Amino acid sequence: MINETYKAMLQGKSIIRELSEYAAARGREIGYDHVFDYSLGNPSVPCPQAYTDGMIELLREEDPMAVHGYSPSLGIESVREAVADSLNRRFAMDYEAKHIFMASGAAGALAHAFRCVTGPGDEILTFAPYFPEYGPYVNLSGARLRVVPADTGQFQINFPALEEVMNEKVMAVLVNTPNNPSGAVYSTDTIRKLADFLRAKQREYGHDIFLISDEPYREIVFEGADSPYVSGFYDNSISCYSYSKSLSLPGERIGYVAVNPRCKDGDILAVMCGQISRGIGHNCPPSSVQLAVARMLDQTSDLSVYETNMNLLYESLKNLGFTVVKPGGTFYLFPKALEEDAGAFCMKAKKYDLILVPSDNFGVPGYFRMAYCIDTEKVKRSLPVLERFVKEEYGR
Amino acid sequence: MINETYKAMLQGKSIIRELSEYAAARGREIGYDHVFDYSLGNPSVPCPQAYTDGMIELLREEDPMAVHGYSPSLGIESVREAVADSLNRRFAMDYEAKHIFMASGAAGALAHAFRCVTGPGDEILTFAPYFPEYGPYVNLSGARLRVVPADTGQFQINFPALEEVMNEKVMAVLVNTPNNPSGAVYSTDTIRKLADFLRAKQREYGHDIFLISDEPYREIVFEGADSPYVSGFYDNSISCYSYSKSLSLPGERIGYVAVNPRCKDGDILAVMCGQISRGIGHNCPPSSVQLAVARMLDQTSDLSVYETNMNLLYESLKNLGFTVVKPGGTFYLFPKALEEDAGAFCMKAKKYDLILVPSDNFGVPGYFRMAYCIDTEKVKRSLPVLERFVKEEYGR
Repeated sequence: MINETYKAMLQGKSIIRELSEYAAARGREIGYDHVFDYSLGNPSVPCPQAYTDGMIELLREEDPMAVHGYSPSLGIESVREAVADSLNRRFAMDYEAKHIFMASGAAGALAHAFRCVTGPGDEILTFAPYFPEYGPYVNLSGARLRVVPADTGQFQINFPALEEVMNEKVMAVLVNTPNNPSGAVYSTDTIRKLADFLRAKQREYGHDIFLISDEPYREIVFEGADSPYVSGFYDNSISCYSYSKSLSLPGERIGYVAVNPRCKDGDILAVMCGQISRGIGHNCPPSSVQLAVARMLDQTSDLSVYETNMNLLYESLKNLGFTVVKPGGTFYLFPKALEEDAGAFCMKAKKYDLILVPSDNFGVPGYFRMAYCIDTEKVKRSLPVLERFVKEEYGR
Repeated sequence: MINETYKAMLQGKSIIRELSEYAAARGREIGYDHVFDYSLGNPSVPCPQAYTDGMIELLREEDPMAVHGYSPSLGIESVREAVADSLNRRFAMDYEAKHIFMASGAAGALAHAFRCVTGPGDEILTFAPYFPEYGPYVNLSGARLRVVPADTGQFQINFPALEEVMNEKVMAVLVNTPNNPSGAVYSTDTIRKLADFLRAKQREYGHDIFLISDEPYREIVFEGADSPYVSGFYDNSISCYSYSKSLSLPGERIGYVAVNPRCKDGDILAVMCGQISRGIGHNCPPSSVQLAVARMLDQTSDLSVYETNMNLLYESLKNLGFTVVKPGGTFYLFPKALEEDAGAFCMKAKKYDLILVPSDNFGVPGYFRMAYCIDTEKVKRSLPVLERFVKEEYGR
């Protein structure tokens, strides 16, 4: 008989997807140029030409049996080595190939990391505002997601709230910095305080607590932001990375799990990911994509458009009187809505063809998310519309 | 704390992997040309040139945002349509795009199919001999794998044994035809009898029983073999396909789940796969690979080498007095060992640099598997070695 858990999930539609579908439909009606679609977190710049060239070279010049053949379940050895070297060079770590597990994007990496360090009934704690997919990601792994209320002042960590939510069942803490949806980057001070807190709790509870860092936006950091490498501050840590945003390859499903060499059982966690993979049917990310990405690990797409867009929108929102924390990275802004009910606020914006996502699903009521991974020209055209919306609906 | 289930799995090494590693090491010692490595089921012919050309064209001429962008979680709509059309054309089915879920190879497809139609504690039944990975694939999904003893006469289905093992907890039956490791292809008669049996059991138990067909070898069928399309015979059926063998793209992780349109809840099972995907972190198979494969759904690599190799080996084994069923497809042979202990038999073969896999892990004792996806020239050179081995060790 069909599985009732998954069947029941069919009822819950993603608000982001619904809005993005609405934007597409509205676009067909009035022309997509006239719809200011801030709903989806989809990279708006192409992958580097070097990726395309590198892939064509692989296809043309290498043995197809090697390019398309089975990858070992932990990933291609030379690729794992290159990833370790790149991380060591950039973040003063001491990874070896054995600490790297090549995964199908950040979703794949997290699916493995969660299963590595938790069992059924254990809790994984994260901080609001958070990516709504963490719910199914964690809950369907057998563990339970617990959410710490937000620090709405700066979208760093609300430590008093953390102290309250923390309990002995928590086996892992999940952070996402630079953060979706707030755009905030956890400061060195925040990460250090969190690491101290977790070390104290490990001693108190007498068991390990893993820090899992979801880092797809690691390379999208703006001028002046302090963006420390999370695993540098805490031994029992696992980094989950994706090339979806940095190389604009979201459909190619390529990323990795990097196990801190200093963590408990650091030598076996990546190998355990290979076992987990058998149960959830991943096997490995596509071989050709592993090989092509390994040629350009320290490169990114031209990500400058995101900072340009952020500055335009941030200034405009401030001038219109919004309460908004200036993002340190990502391609998201997370302003406070002009009325308590963020859903009602976003419904009104829709009338102006401004597609904004209400914050409730991110674990904080009363805010909205703008994904400004769109053309700068369109951002500019949206500013007077935003102004008109605020004036007409809220008299400002 | 780290997960004990996955940690415990690190102890159990795959015999196939161990033998293949041995073969590689021995190859470094004496030259790989002199090692007759029949251990691994890895395609030995390259992907069609048309695949390479098609992918290069996509990379050169299409918008990189479309080629590498997020795919919908069920797969790219045009690709799903093309897969449905191809299946309808070839197997007289009536699939629509909504019945197709694009998956990361057969392992990914099975991971979704199992979770669709079973819950924790349910049983999935399969037939010996079987692919050993079915153990972790099923057991880590929450269901339990039950194995029906083999029909060692023809490696069809042992129906009296099936009747004995069948019980009310069985929610799905998993078949793999053409079969790894036996090379047998289930005949129309076998499939028809199985379908009748399952329909009767559905009535008896008052619940659905799904037939899940794992079909990565569907395109590798030899002259004269009767190779029916399983889902044509039973409404509650799900086909799991991979392009790994037919297009020699095992590392690219591309395949699909095809839900029989006539099955119970046929309209929602593929959508449920999208929900399952969130929990196990798949998202979708690589976008570029989906697009490239969709251009050549009815093509295959030049698969003729497998039949050539099979005939050479089958004749030789018969002449040496082996009991062996002539394969109807795949690239495997599954002869009876010349002593009761297949492990001991394969150990002796190793002395002659013949790498054979004992059958115990496939759920049948006393046989061995030969994966003849190697160069024909090497197969030919292995024949006198096989003869010498049998003569010297068993006096034949």
